[in-house]
Amino acid sequence: MTLDEIIKEIKNAEKIVILTHESPDGDAIGSSLAVKLMLDKLGKKADVIIPEYSRLFNFLPAVNYIKEDSKNKNYDLAIAVDCATSKRLAKGEYFENANKTIVIDHHGSNTMYGDLNYVNPVSPACCEVLAEMFGYYELDITKEIGTCIMTGIITDTGGFQYSGVNAETFEFAAELIRKGVDIPDIYKRTLRTKTKANFELTKRVIDRMEILENGKVTFTYINLQDEKEVAAEPGDHEGLVDIGREIEGVEVSIFIRQKENAQDSYKVSLRSKEYVNVSDICIMFGGGGHPKAAGALIQGNVEQVKEKIMKEIRKVLK
Amino acid sequence: MTLDEIIKEIKNAEKIVILTHESPDGDAIGSSLAVKLMLDKLGKKADVIIPEYSRLFNFLPAVNYIKEDSKNKNYDLAIAVDCATSKRLAKGEYFENANKTIVIDHHGSNTMYGDLNYVNPVSPACCEVLAEMFGYYELDITKEIGTCIMTGIITDTGGFQYSGVNAETFEFAAELIRKGVDIPDIYKRTLRTKTKANFELTKRVIDRMEILENGKVTFTYINLQDEKEVAAEPGDHEGLVDIGREIEGVEVSIFIRQKENAQDSYKVSLRSKEYVNVSDICIMFGGGGHPKAAGALIQGNVEQVKEKIMKEIRKVLK
Repeated sequence: MTLDEIIKEIKNAEKIVILTHESPDGDAIGSSLAVKLMLDKLGKKADVIIPEYSRLFNFLPAVNYIKEDSKNKNYDLAIAVDCATSKRLAKGEYFENANKTIVIDHHGSNTMYGDLNYVNPVSPACCEVLAEMFGYYELDITKEIGTCIMTGIITDTGGFQYSGVNAETFEFAAELIRKGVDIPDIYKRTLRTKTKANFELTKRVIDRMEILENGKVTFTYINLQDEKEVAAEPGDHEGLVDIGREIEGVEVSIFIRQKENAQDSYKVSLRSKEYVNVSDICIMFGGGGHPKAAGALIQGNVEQVKEKIMKEIRKVLK
Repeated sequence: MTLDEIIKEIKNAEKIVILTHESPDGDAIGSSLAVKLMLDKLGKKADVIIPEYSRLFNFLPAVNYIKEDSKNKNYDLAIAVDCATSKRLAKGEYFENANKTIVIDHHGSNTMYGDLNYVNPVSPACCEVLAEMFGYYELDITKEIGTCIMTGIITDTGGFQYSGVNAETFEFAAELIRKGVDIPDIYKRTLRTKTKANFELTKRVIDRMEILENGKVTFTYINLQDEKEVAAEPGDHEGLVDIGREIEGVEVSIFIRQKENAQDSYKVSLRSKEYVNVSDICIMFGGGGHPKAAGALIQGNVEQVKEKIMKEIRKVLK
């Protein structure tokens, strides 16, 4: 059983590093810090390396443990959380150089790139996978660990809204409330707080929103000039892709943003409502994700990138 | 015990009418239909009278029972749900003319205007109050009734986000999932579906958003002309007031919309984040609500109404 091997490797390791994907969201950071805090409880030293993240997550317990980088180049064990491929890992070199590697994730598109892989694609968040693991190991989830885990679940499910959410998710939430985890506070700080820059970007994204294909697709974008003008920081583009999908009748929403240091390259985010598998579309462009939420990097200017995606979407649109 | 008297009155009544507040939201409609379906199970005939509501709620079981009006002018029993004052009731004449009246609610500002009043101001939704009552009576909550109840809880808590949400709310959600209630579906249909008109209003509301008092207050509006241009229907203004509050640093968001058939009169919605009691402010203008979400009707043009509210907000802003 993978879970038994995982705990064995953790017990054997002296120097552990925790890694996650680039542009980390709440599930990535929550998972990283939940693992860090649990390793602490087990008496294990671990580094959490996350080069940059939204300051909205500064409320998280143990956020001060996060390092941008490390002097140590050789870890006994690297644990990657919430990351589908080794390519998407931020500071992936620590993963490559580690003696042993463990992958914990919930992406169906996970390539199983670790020595040991524990991936539950049915789980709505990597943090919920961790909660399962901690339960299996009979490890107590403290208020602090619970806050990290709940942050991942709340952000990755959009506040208990996506279809992976199940009865266990809600029971676990009830259990954590009884331990003192403040769910309304996490909710407010993550999903319901827009930075001023995010609000300014929202305004532009809505003003530019094109409603295409008889109202079934929306397209909008931001470029580096926008980000500069509103003084955008990491994370300030969060949620912008969801705006289009919320419109009645829309099946796919497309949001693209220009990549830093690259005039002709856009980070594409796709969301779908009912039947379009946007992960399949993103995989064609070298990206991936979940069936209803996925991303890729595509070369071209706004119009070219839009056409490349639209061409694929038109093929599957009913 | 009020609950015992309530069930006694229901058992004694032949003709029952269910009423709720004007501009009904998901909790108002969910509560009305949950009561209707439960009365059905108890073998009691009841009319649900709701003159108008958003078509987003057309997915609800038993929505076809809703009548705009009734030929019967004299009911044995009127049950008002989710309505703080008799003045706010839609078709309040049926309440006035009924032989007996029952009020079931969760507003702290409820004036206890019924013969029997069951009000739990700690509950995050009137639908959760109903769930408590059904539990007390040991009545089984079917999938259909659960769908109505969950709609009220999800919409009134903004998707489990507001502070009244407690461990029981989540446990109840888990229980309803096991009964087949589709929480992600309810979520999507209510909180995550914007009509095209709502999207167009959102665009205007964001474009007009003023950020005042060093970023602590936001103000925005829509008028009858806007509603006409976007062909707005009942419910199309839902959620517009929340946009301002989500901006970092904002304590109070103000959203006003012109009243139909009244040039110089605006429906005011206020939301607060941490400490301002907006219900207190709205009560000064003859309105009311919850400490962090309240409304009133104020005379004047946009600038005049804005100044009237700002004057009161400035007094309590830290």
